[in-house]
Amino acid sequence: MTDLAERAGVSIATVSRALSGSTGVSATTRVRIRSLADELGYAVSPDAARLARGSTGRVAVVTPNLSHWFYSAMLDGIVTALHGADVDVLLYEVKAERERRRFFEELPARRQVDAVVLIALPISDDERRRLDLMGVTAVMAGGTLGDHPHVRIDDVAMARQATQHLLLAGHRRVAMIGAVGTWSLEYGAPPDRLRGFSEALAAADVAADDELVVRTPWGTTGGADGMARLLSLDDPPTAVVAFSDEVAFGALRTLRRSGIAVPHALSLVGMDDHELADTMDLTTVRQPVTEQGHAAGELVRRFLVGDAPADVHLTLPTHLVARGTTGPPLTATR
Amino acid sequence: MTDLAERAGVSIATVSRALSGSTGVSATTRVRIRSLADELGYAVSPDAARLARGSTGRVAVVTPNLSHWFYSAMLDGIVTALHGADVDVLLYEVKAERERRRFFEELPARRQVDAVVLIALPISDDERRRLDLMGVTAVMAGGTLGDHPHVRIDDVAMARQATQHLLLAGHRRVAMIGAVGTWSLEYGAPPDRLRGFSEALAAADVAADDELVVRTPWGTTGGADGMARLLSLDDPPTAVVAFSDEVAFGALRTLRRSGIAVPHALSLVGMDDHELADTMDLTTVRQPVTEQGHAAGELVRRFLVGDAPADVHLTLPTHLVARGTTGPPLTATR
Repeated sequence: MTDLAERAGVSIATVSRALSGSTGVSATTRVRIRSLADELGYAVSPDAARLARGSTGRVAVVTPNLSHWFYSAMLDGIVTALHGADVDVLLYEVKAERERRRFFEELPARRQVDAVVLIALPISDDERRRLDLMGVTAVMAGGTLGDHPHVRIDDVAMARQATQHLLLAGHRRVAMIGAVGTWSLEYGAPPDRLRGFSEALAAADVAADDELVVRTPWGTTGGADGMARLLSLDDPPTAVVAFSDEVAFGALRTLRRSGIAVPHALSLVGMDDHELADTMDLTTVRQPVTEQGHAAGELVRRFLVGDAPADVHLTLPTHLVARGTTGPPLTATR
Repeated sequence: MTDLAERAGVSIATVSRALSGSTGVSATTRVRIRSLADELGYAVSPDAARLARGSTGRVAVVTPNLSHWFYSAMLDGIVTALHGADVDVLLYEVKAERERRRFFEELPARRQVDAVVLIALPISDDERRRLDLMGVTAVMAGGTLGDHPHVRIDDVAMARQATQHLLLAGHRRVAMIGAVGTWSLEYGAPPDRLRGFSEALAAADVAADDELVVRTPWGTTGGADGMARLLSLDDPPTAVVAFSDEVAFGALRTLRRSGIAVPHALSLVGMDDHELADTMDLTTVRQPVTEQGHAAGELVRRFLVGDAPADVHLTLPTHLVARGTTGPPLTATR
């Protein structure tokens, strides 16, 4: 690097900053040093460049699940946003509670990263304190993390939109298949989506009926089971809000096997807009998943280059996607 | 590397193969070259001596797609297998051809890893040479990579199993919705699965009919389109083999919208066993995806601890999963 600095007539620090993409170097100088470096066949040692700017060049992404579409789509958005930032992405999957605890215990002592992105991962107060102590940028994608930057959606509004769609079509006997999680730390989505459902009913002066809210383990099997329970009621619903599209897919299986025509005999709306929702003709409320990941990755990228954004708490909008599983109730068409 | 080759009394190519875990080198030679390399503190790439000693503590995983279930399930298996190996996983998504080329151009010069795992990523000869030159363990999950270790399935056998299932049920007019890729480097699956389909028909003395093979862009939209084309024939098939479960999901949408009862009027079998195949009641041939990733990660783990497995070319079995979308043809039940 000394060589290059001499030739360019600048300090070593300037060469380092120019090659590492840091600020504080004029565009002209940067271009000149870059082309000189190319001429000399000068290989940028990323470690050296990073030492100069006091960073590791690594970002940790922590996800509770690698194989589920929601987390995958988030990860895709994060990695894509970081693609241009010349950082390496370190990937950590913390499926079990024990793994999550271990990750946070070991992180400060053993890992060297510039930033940590958590994907929809509820953490304990103690774990948050450990993150705080690390002093790195920590961003939550798909949730909140105290005062740390986050990108999320409004789950209450989302469920309100789904429920309102059924109410506007004339349904009054509307059920919800809710979700039960397995983490000891509560995810925000289940209670929030249930609240949105209740709020929409209340706003339309529809009396709440406890037997129309079933809670099942999250997923397709839970959805199939939840729908079967609703069909067992003396007075089954004419429309159902599913906690998620996967819950709705399971519900659709029960309806198909029961010979119940959708949406003629029963309307069903999901939430999320799963990649297969369109193929299933499922009406749903779309949340932008990859976009949340991308926005979170973009926040990290800007923090790393010292261009801290003014607004670091982002809530992206959700909206109805009307497809083939919802329509007016039978009574309304008589 | 010349140094090491001279000392060991073998060719440079042999040294390269021995250090990278390729075949074509006897176990004795491999051990001898390894220990010589250790003695010399020998670095096979310009990066650092740590490389050859396998002590960067980092493994790169390269995937063409982060948001697709197949690659996600592979990644999940790989990361889980490496979980106990105390290594960090560096994640690279190379969606576009240009990104893939750039990754291979930059990898030897800029990245420091002990091993590279590719997920079902066809690469060029030049890119393979670059991998060879790096001298790190390179493993392919879901395909082959020259002599390098790999874990895969037999796509020909898989399609044969799917087709045979329909033939055994009495179908004779069997179609296939094949796939067309967008990469300039050909994936093995499309031609292999087509071959398995043809071989099964030939083995059952069913004459091939060109109009019963349609090729569409891979995915649900292609599947929906492919099925529509088959339904437009003067003499439509009584049974269809889909290139994948996602192609089958698209085909099911066309059948649902066309009012065609499945399997009564038409049987459909997919391939892969997608996480939603069970929810869709789709008959399919299962390939173990997470398991392939896990086996690939396990190969890497064993190479890193110096416990090189004897068999580094694994082909995992596929098998039929009979569900609700296949049955005998109408003619057979008359």
